[in-house]
Amino acid sequence: MKLNCDMGESFGAWTMGKDAEVMPCIDMASIACGFHASDPVTMQKTVALALEQGVTIGAHPGYPDLMGFGRRQFDCTEQELYAWLGYQIGALKGICQQQNTVVNYVKPHGALYNTMMKDMAVLETVMRAVKAAAPGCPLVVMAIPKRQPILDMAADIGIDLMFEAFSDRAYDDEGFLVDRRIDGAVHGSANAIIEQVQQIIEQGTVTTLSGKTLKIEADTLCIHGDGPHASAVANALTQWRANGAD
Amino acid sequence: MKLNCDMGESFGAWTMGKDAEVMPCIDMASIACGFHASDPVTMQKTVALALEQGVTIGAHPGYPDLMGFGRRQFDCTEQELYAWLGYQIGALKGICQQQNTVVNYVKPHGALYNTMMKDMAVLETVMRAVKAAAPGCPLVVMAIPKRQPILDMAADIGIDLMFEAFSDRAYDDEGFLVDRRIDGAVHGSANAIIEQVQQIIEQGTVTTLSGKTLKIEADTLCIHGDGPHASAVANALTQWRANGAD
Amino acid sequence: MKLNCDMGESFGAWTMGKDAEVMPCIDMASIACGFHASDPVTMQKTVALALEQGVTIGAHPGYPDLMGFGRRQFDCTEQELYAWLGYQIGALKGICQQQNTVVNYVKPHGALYNTMMKDMAVLETVMRAVKAAAPGCPLVVMAIPKRQPILDMAADIGIDLMFEAFSDRAYDDEGFLVDRRIDGAVHGSANAIIEQVQQIIEQGTVTTLSGKTLKIEADTLCIHGDGPHASAVANALTQWRANGAD
Amino acid sequence: MKLNCDMGESFGAWTMGKDAEVMPCIDMASIACGFHASDPVTMQKTVALALEQGVTIGAHPGYPDLMGFGRRQFDCTEQELYAWLGYQIGALKGICQQQNTVVNYVKPHGALYNTMMKDMAVLETVMRAVKAAAPGCPLVVMAIPKRQPILDMAADIGIDLMFEAFSDRAYDDEGFLVDRRIDGAVHGSANAIIEQVQQIIEQGTVTTLSGKTLKIEADTLCIHGDGPHASAVANALTQWRANGAD
Repeated sequence: MKLNCDMGESFGAWTMGKDAEVMPCIDMASIACGFHASDPVTMQKTVALALEQGVTIGAHPGYPDLMGFGRRQFDCTEQELYAWLGYQIGALKGICQQQNTVVNYVKPHGALYNTMMKDMAVLETVMRAVKAAAPGCPLVVMAIPKRQPILDMAADIGIDLMFEAFSDRAYDDEGFLVDRRIDGAVHGSANAIIEQVQQIIEQGTVTTLSGKTLKIEADTLCIHGDGPHASAVANALTQWRANGAD
Repeated sequence: MKLNCDMGESFGAWTMGKDAEVMPCIDMASIACGFHASDPVTMQKTVALALEQGVTIGAHPGYPDLMGFGRRQFDCTEQELYAWLGYQIGALKGICQQQNTVVNYVKPHGALYNTMMKDMAVLETVMRAVKAAAPGCPLVVMAIPKRQPILDMAADIGIDLMFEAFSDRAYDDEGFLVDRRIDGAVHGSANAIIEQVQQIIEQGTVTTLSGKTLKIEADTLCIHGDGPHASAVANALTQWRANGAD
Repeated sequence: MKLNCDMGESFGAWTMGKDAEVMPCIDMASIACGFHASDPVTMQKTVALALEQGVTIGAHPGYPDLMGFGRRQFDCTEQELYAWLGYQIGALKGICQQQNTVVNYVKPHGALYNTMMKDMAVLETVMRAVKAAAPGCPLVVMAIPKRQPILDMAADIGIDLMFEAFSDRAYDDEGFLVDRRIDGAVHGSANAIIEQVQQIIEQGTVTTLSGKTLKIEADTLCIHGDGPHASAVANALTQWRANGAD
Repeated sequence: MKLNCDMGESFGAWTMGKDAEVMPCIDMASIACGFHASDPVTMQKTVALALEQGVTIGAHPGYPDLMGFGRRQFDCTEQELYAWLGYQIGALKGICQQQNTVVNYVKPHGALYNTMMKDMAVLETVMRAVKAAAPGCPLVVMAIPKRQPILDMAADIGIDLMFEAFSDRAYDDEGFLVDRRIDGAVHGSANAIIEQVQQIIEQGTVTTLSGKTLKIEADTLCIHGDGPHASAVANALTQWRANGAD
């Protein structure tokens, strides 16, 4: 089970995320590409940090909306989305190439991620755009229970998938994330996050908000580098994995 | 002698340049990368247009200044410039890869082009950034008479160069462009432009503003797609070349 | 019947609209405020042009989306919309104050205009924001037949309205604009536009796409300065009004 | 002696400065206007915070360069600078008007502030632009010893000035700030900052980096809200002033 984390989401003089603290404890760094966050120098530094720590680099493209951090729904055509993905993935590849490294996977950000999980037409555009811009790179999607249509589409298009679970978000009984506006949607303590991580990794299940136990099959687990518990979670996971957990 | 032209310099709903009219008559399309002009969809369409016409694609990166169209001097560190170039070149490569094509050369835009021709430290950063982001691609520089230091630097770094002459700008007696603020700096008629093109191609010389004849050795000749004479010049050159001029 | 036109929608080096040709023939210039189009210098020049021609100045705020020209639906909170309007209206007032003139009305742009006509909650936010940022200035809304709820809301909030008809768009039988994606939605000739203008002004009616005659009570009529017929329409209207039509 | 502080320099999801902690201890809040930092919602919240604490509101306009935080020299024409100031000052006035309050002074930011103190032509443009966009509002300039030419220009133009001293920066023997790149240019402890504040307020002097005592006549003293010592300095000053220091 690979740990992934959004990285390089600072912008100019503004800092977001404790990238230097979190990088040593993760396996996959999803690096923002300048549309919802980041800038070329931030990307350059984040790639260098990932290389130092031997962390796999992925592209983390989003909607072109710095002021809204890519969390706002964004009305766009299929052509726009296709080109926006090619542009952002290419931009990170350019920064990587300057450091003799490569982009290994793609994980869409924020509202774009949510939209592609709800709208199969958007997901298809994402798959086609990623396959064309980053041949051979898997696309990270959410590890929902009803994944057969997604698998079928990926097989048709010829793209690999990685299914992702979340460490710090509550699940509903259908295996989707609880809406952020509902109480309890985001885990409020480092302990709750670490427990969910351990349960997913060791038992392959999550306990839903209503108390049910749900199977969850995931290839990668998302932790966050910008929350109040980022350092505590990162340290706990590092220690736990050092003790042979993974 | 290859004809090159800045292309893809529209932005969103705003159009600049008669790309569709000019593309059939040029050999090299220098496509803007979203910092001084263009956007991912414009880049996508411009790449498609170049492919249709069999025109070689180059990256045309600039300073991050849409409002100033990259014509404003921009104070930046070596690190910033290096990353900005990697980002932009990569972005166009991503758009190209989605269409199974590649970036073949790099020509900096506007104030960045002028600055690198005046400041060898900036030129060195440009060379290193381009070499690292686009290995094997030549860099387009101005065909000034005193080019030995530039050739030496390029040899040290290991990058190829293309020397460029200008079709629509007056030259001074040292072989530099006359400052735009001086009367006569920009040729005011299609005929004047076409004559300068023909003189450069056929005789390897330009007539300076003061009337001197100056040798000019160039690999490529820049025409512009957004001036009032763009179509007339493009048509005349097409016809002339069809008659065996090139 | 006042003629209004969107103005100042150029951006940096990119030109949109034949402002200098159209300004002499209109009564109200709706000047973009930098979010969907325009920049401070463009606004400054457009204000100067309006002053020269004795044209009333209005603010034309939009969504913060230069790349989409404010035509894209934009998911935002009430607080964001309120602040975005205060910011843009204030910005134009600042440019006006530097020329000893003022903003006299507000007309939202593009997707924001459409959204406020469909969603009464958005309209209420717009009314409150405009009233607070530009006390005494009327808000321009579409002259739809069922306007009582809009009038009631405006009376409650204490803001004046101007109802607007369109010169170059086809109407459906309910008095709304025909969707741009339907054939015939945008009038294809200067004559069709001029005829609709004359019918609205002289008879207070429009002929709908299906051929019905519909009453339309409007205070102002929108013409466009950036279409292919802008100059022809502007000239025809100027001549017609010079002959005593208005 | 009024304490002023840059405020509202967050942007979208990115936070900068401890505005809520610092606001209660200052007299004048210089609020960013969206060009080098801030956005309309941030401005709205910052104005509300200033109103709650009874703090005077000023505009803090900068160069249009979010990625560089307005700290980069920016090549622009007089016309551009004039319009940029009108736009930004107006935008903050719009946000203020929505809360029934006003802008009371103007203090340029970062590279623009530095440039106007070095280049009298730029200073003149700033004075004229501020006077026209915010009549009656004083302009904050640096309290340098040789201020007669600045006073003469302000008298000619008809604008009031406020002279400003700095709490956390070392001075050279001519009364200018020591370049940031020199060791000791920025005070490294809360104590050093508080001592310089107290010396300026109580004795009207600063101790220069070389150890000289220099007279400094200032109307306002700049503290910073985003440094590592912001809270400590703010608390110490609040306590000290509560004890009757001011």
